[in-house]
This record gives sequence, C-alpha cells and structure tokens, in this order.
Amino acid sequence: MGKNRLEAFSDGVLAIIITIMVLELKVPRGTDLAALAPLLPGFLSYVLSFVYLGIYWNNHHHMLHTVNQVSGGILWANLHLLFWLSLFPISTGWMGENHFAAVPTALYGFVLLMAAIAYWLLQRSIIASQGRDSLLARAVGRDYKGKSSPAFYLLAIPAAFVSPWISEFLYVFVALMWLVPDRRIEKVLAQE
Amino acid sequence: MGKNRLEAFSDGVLAIIITIMVLELKVPRGTDLAALAPLLPGFLSYVLSFVYLGIYWNNHHHMLHTVNQVSGGILWANLHLLFWLSLFPISTGWMGENHFAAVPTALYGFVLLMAAIAYWLLQRSIIASQGRDSLLARAVGRDYKGKSSPAFYLLAIPAAFVSPWISEFLYVFVALMWLVPDRRIEKVLAQE
Amino acid sequence: MGKNRLEAFSDGVLAIIITIMVLELKVPRGTDLAALAPLLPGFLSYVLSFVYLGIYWNNHHHMLHTVNQVSGGILWANLHLLFWLSLFPISTGWMGENHFAAVPTALYGFVLLMAAIAYWLLQRSIIASQGRDSLLARAVGRDYKGKSSPAFYLLAIPAAFVSPWISEFLYVFVALMWLVPDRRIEKVLAQE
Amino acid sequence: MGKNRLEAFSDGVLAIIITIMVLELKVPRGTDLAALAPLLPGFLSYVLSFVYLGIYWNNHHHMLHTVNQVSGGILWANLHLLFWLSLFPISTGWMGENHFAAVPTALYGFVLLMAAIAYWLLQRSIIASQGRDSLLARAVGRDYKGKSSPAFYLLAIPAAFVSPWISEFLYVFVALMWLVPDRRIEKVLAQE
Repeated sequence: MGKNRLEAFSDGVLAIIITIMVLELKVPRGTDLAALAPLLPGFLSYVLSFVYLGIYWNNHHHMLHTVNQVSGGILWANLHLLFWLSLFPISTGWMGENHFAAVPTALYGFVLLMAAIAYWLLQRSIIASQGRDSLLARAVGRDYKGKSSPAFYLLAIPAAFVSPWISEFLYVFVALMWLVPDRRIEKVLAQE
Repeated sequence: MGKNRLEAFSDGVLAIIITIMVLELKVPRGTDLAALAPLLPGFLSYVLSFVYLGIYWNNHHHMLHTVNQVSGGILWANLHLLFWLSLFPISTGWMGENHFAAVPTALYGFVLLMAAIAYWLLQRSIIASQGRDSLLARAVGRDYKGKSSPAFYLLAIPAAFVSPWISEFLYVFVALMWLVPDRRIEKVLAQE
Repeated sequence: MGKNRLEAFSDGVLAIIITIMVLELKVPRGTDLAALAPLLPGFLSYVLSFVYLGIYWNNHHHMLHTVNQVSGGILWANLHLLFWLSLFPISTGWMGENHFAAVPTALYGFVLLMAAIAYWLLQRSIIASQGRDSLLARAVGRDYKGKSSPAFYLLAIPAAFVSPWISEFLYVFVALMWLVPDRRIEKVLAQE
Repeated sequence: MGKNRLEAFSDGVLAIIITIMVLELKVPRGTDLAALAPLLPGFLSYVLSFVYLGIYWNNHHHMLHTVNQVSGGILWANLHLLFWLSLFPISTGWMGENHFAAVPTALYGFVLLMAAIAYWLLQRSIIASQGRDSLLARAVGRDYKGKSSPAFYLLAIPAAFVSPWISEFLYVFVALMWLVPDRRIEKVLAQE
C-alpha cells in the first residue's frame, strides 16, 4: 500500500473530527447575550481541541513525509492514533459542558495522553520499518517535546483533583510548546 | 509542505461544514404544511450561510492557486480561517431558530467579521511569503471587496439592535457583492 | 479552475450527505424486536434516498467527464445542485418519522423535483460553455429520462394528498428507471 | 469510470462512518467517575466497530488494487457494501446503549452478516469482470476467512438469545481472525 491513501484517509478522518467537534457546542437557549455565557467553557474547550488537532495534523503530515512503504504495522498504528483522536469531540464536550469540573478535565488529559502514546507508537513503527539509520530517527533526535508531553499529561491528570486550572494550564502549555514550529524533519530532509 | 494537502484538507473541512450545517435544521414536528412555517427562518439562514461558504470555497481556491510553498505561518493562518468558518453551523442555527432575533443576528455578523479578518490575514501571510512583487498582491490590487466587507459587518452588528432586518439586508448585500465573479486572479495569471 | 477540485469537492459533499443521512435514523427505544417496527418507514426512506444519491453521484461523474474548463456559471450551478441534495437527509427524516404522511411525502417529491431541475440547469450550463456541437449535448440526446423525471415528480406531489403510496410508487419507479445503466455518454466518448 | 474516484468516494464514506459513529457515544451526565460507568458498553461497542471498519477499509483497498476498469455492476456492488457499513453507527449505538441486550446484539450480527455478503458480492463482480483466470480469483483462493465469517455471524445471531456473550465472543473472534495480516493479494501481485 502506498502512503497516499493512508494520508488521504487520515486527512479525511482528521477533517471530520475537527468539524463534528463543533456539533458538541449546542445552540444556546434564549436570545440575549446572557444565553451565551454558559457556552464560554465549551467554546474555550473547542478552541483548545481545535489547536491540538491542528498540531496533530501538521506533525502527522511531516512524519508521513518520511515514509515510503506502508506496512500492516504502520497501518494499524495509524488507525490506533485516529481512534484516540476520534475521542476528542466527546471528551471536549464533557469538559466544556461541565465547566472544567475535575473528572472531565482529568479524562480529557487521559485522552491527550493516549493520543500522545499512540503517536509515539506510530513513530516507533515507522522507524522500525525504515531500518536503523532511518531518516525519521535522525529527524526526531532526542525528541524532547514528544517525551515531555506525556509527562505533562501524567502530571495534569491527578492535578485536576487538586484544581482543574492546573491541568488546563498544562494542556495549554503543551499546545503552545508544539505550536513553536518544528523544523527537525525539514532540516534532515534538506541535508539529504 | 506542498499546497496539495493544504487544499485537500481545507476542501474536506469546508465540505463537511457546508453539509453538517443542515443538521441544525431540525426535522419538523407535525405533518401538515403549518409545521413547516417555523422552519422558514432556519431555512433562509441556511441558504445564506450556504452561499457564504460557497463564496469562501471559491475564493480560497483562487487564492491558493498563487501559492507554491506553504510555510508554517500560512498553515496556521489557514487553520484560523477554518476555525471561524466552523462556527457557521452553530451561529446559523441560533439565528434561524430564534427567527432573526437581535443578539443572534449580531453574533452571526461577528462570525462573518472574524472569518473576513481571518481571510485577510491568510492573504497577508501568503503575500508576505511570496515577496514584495508577489502575484497575489498584484491580483488583489486595491481589494475594494475585501476591505469593504468587514466595514459592512461592523455596521451590521450594532444595527441588529435597532432592527435585525438592516443587518440581514447587509449580509445579503455583501454576499451578492461577492457573487459577482471576481476575475482579478485569473486576469493576472493570464497576463503572466 | 480545473475540474478536479470541483469533482473532489462534490464527491466530498455527496459522501457526507449519504452518510449523515443515517444520523436521522434514531437509535430505537426498547430492546425487543417490536422496538424496530416503528423504524421500518425511516429505514425504507433511507434506502430510497441512498439509491437516489448513488444515482446522482454516478451521473454527475459521467457528466463532469465531458467538462474541460470550469466557468463561474458551472461552479454555481454545481453548488445549486449540491444545495438541494443537502436537503435529502431532513426531508427523508421527516417522511420516514411520519410513516409516509401526505405533506412530508409531497415535500420529499418537491426536493427531488428541485434537485432534478438543478441537475438539468447544470447540464445546460455545461453544454452552453462547450459550444453548440458539444460532446455532452450529443450524449444527452433527447434526454427522455431527464425530461420525464420532473414530470413524474410533478405528478407525485399532488398525488400524495390522494394517497402517499402513489407518490412512493412513482419515486421508486423513477429510481429504477435511472438504475438501468445509462451508456449515452460512454457511447459518444467511444465514438470520438 | 476509472477506479480512482471509486476509491476516493469509498474512502470518504468510510472515513465519515468511522468518525460519526463517535456521535452515538453521548456526553455523560454528571461529573464523577460513576457517570462514566454506563458508557462502558457503548465504548466497547465503539472499539469493536472501529476495528471492523478498519479491517474493511484495509481489505477493500487491497481488493480494488486488482481492478482496472469499473463497470456499472462493480459500482453498485460497492454502493451496496457502503450501505450496510453505513448502518454500523446505529446498530453499534443500539447495542451499546442497551448493554449488549439480546435483540440489539443479534441485529448487530445481522448487519455484520449483510456487510460480509455485500463484500463477497463485490468480490464476485470484480472477478466476473476480470474474466476467468483473474488476478483477484487467484489471490482469494479458497477464501477460508471470507467463507467462514458469515457462518460465524449466522451462528452468533441465534446465540444472542441464549447469551449475548457468546455472540460478542464470536464477533471479537472474527475480528481477530481478520486482524492477522492477509498477504494473499500482495503475494499474487509479487508473483506477477
């Protein structure tokens, strides 16, 4: 299987996830500005998840750039990543509707954690299929971001039971960390 | 990153937004013609938003035609535009369900305004990456439409509190202004 | 604009319409076989609309095969067709939920009628842009199917008020008429 | 019709089905961990259906790899398969919401059965169009998996009325059987 269909399918699923997430924002009841206030937490959760999915789409694209042949392992590692990303809408909705209550905030962190692990597994299976001195392995390097993100999520999950705001701060912090453009893969590609 | 995936992803998101918007039209209760009457404002709002999204899809396509290389800035400016467009279904639904009440009509204008600003920012970042004498800069020219649209929306938002019909008139007027085919980019491309 | 993006966008919208239509089938209440019985009319409506959308997708593809250059007129004629097709889910849902009551059945016919007219307008605008002796004009020929379908819908709409079963029979009949493979365009292409 | 559009359309529909299925998982009420417990059966059903759709996507892709020319028969056999796959979300939702009750579990098996039959019909129509000594016919060979799966589903449907857990065990077993990579088509392609 060439990587084109894998890319197209992943793009399709990501585009749909990012878009149906907005369906969790319910049309407000009432017609005054006050009717919008209860929607604010849902809206902020939506913004956060939109940014995360944008980051995943971007990084996923760069990572697949280094792939030539798609093995069965890569295919299922990719579907596994899409599975956890598909849980963004419901966990975002639960956190937003309940105004960042403790358990929904922790569960959101759990979904972020599982998606990060799934991304790391996909990265591993691509490197494994490319052989030892692989392009992606060199591009990823020490992978500070990839390794610290799960650590931050692991910190944020119990922190939600102290104060959900600590968790939200950590989620926003990790997102900002990834928003800083990541030129590792581009650099290694340019060196070739 | 080549522009093909950006185009494909944007097309996917736009196709989904334009289609899930119809889910905000609820199946009517009752089985007589009178049951359809309360749906009329929702239907008209749907038509308006459908036309706006069609215009965005069309213009977006022409604009991306001039792009060769997608930078990180362009990528996030594009996601920013898609973010505001993704709020069309909920703001359309709120305006339609409440029969063009003042606040929902103003909020709809706010989403139109933010989408127009996001489009302008995307245009800026493409021109910036193309350099001074860029193709797009020449094609856009004075950009009467692009500059007057936000002004009309800014007018329409407070006007909704006087009478929402003024706002609706302005939204329809701007849409019609854009429906007139815009051949600027095609002209400049033909001149090359 | 090349036709590839128009095709891809139309395919995307059609794929989404055909799939979200299933969301109008509500998960049944209760867990016995009797709980499925009230879903039967909705299911049959879904099958009918699925077949219609399959036919549109198929014919649309063949028609676009003859297009080289997409004008603004073709683009908006295409969006106009997608607009009416996007109303399939809600009109299917209304008809199914109300067990083929008169008004919903008539409205379903109205949406079929408008889609058929929109398809015909798109065909006209493609032929117009191709010039007098166009490939599509020769392929379409007398266009018995294209011309009789709206007539059947026009008959079915008032007939729903006599008995909705007459209308349903006509809808099924027209669908079967189109299911018979239409080789006109393929023939003319082969003659070239 | 070339196979590219058929592939793209099928991929689009599959990507949408796999993603909207998550909309059947309702945002939990309440904000404690106990609120998540009633969602567990729905979540497990979602995982099972996600895996099944991943398998279908994968096998469908390999099968279409052997196709050169898409006939009308293949096109409608493909739409027929997509039809039954489109019923995954609702049947998954019904089974999950009712915690694997007998009738919903049997109905889920019925949808699996019909999808398997539709897949087999598509395989037949591709082989028929390729002629006797077709690539796909040799690749499929004895087709142990393809022939035993419907048998397992046929067993699982009545078994649900004894104990739904027998049926669930069989559904999981068949999924695992297919997860073992299927290299038949790749082998035959490599032999060419």
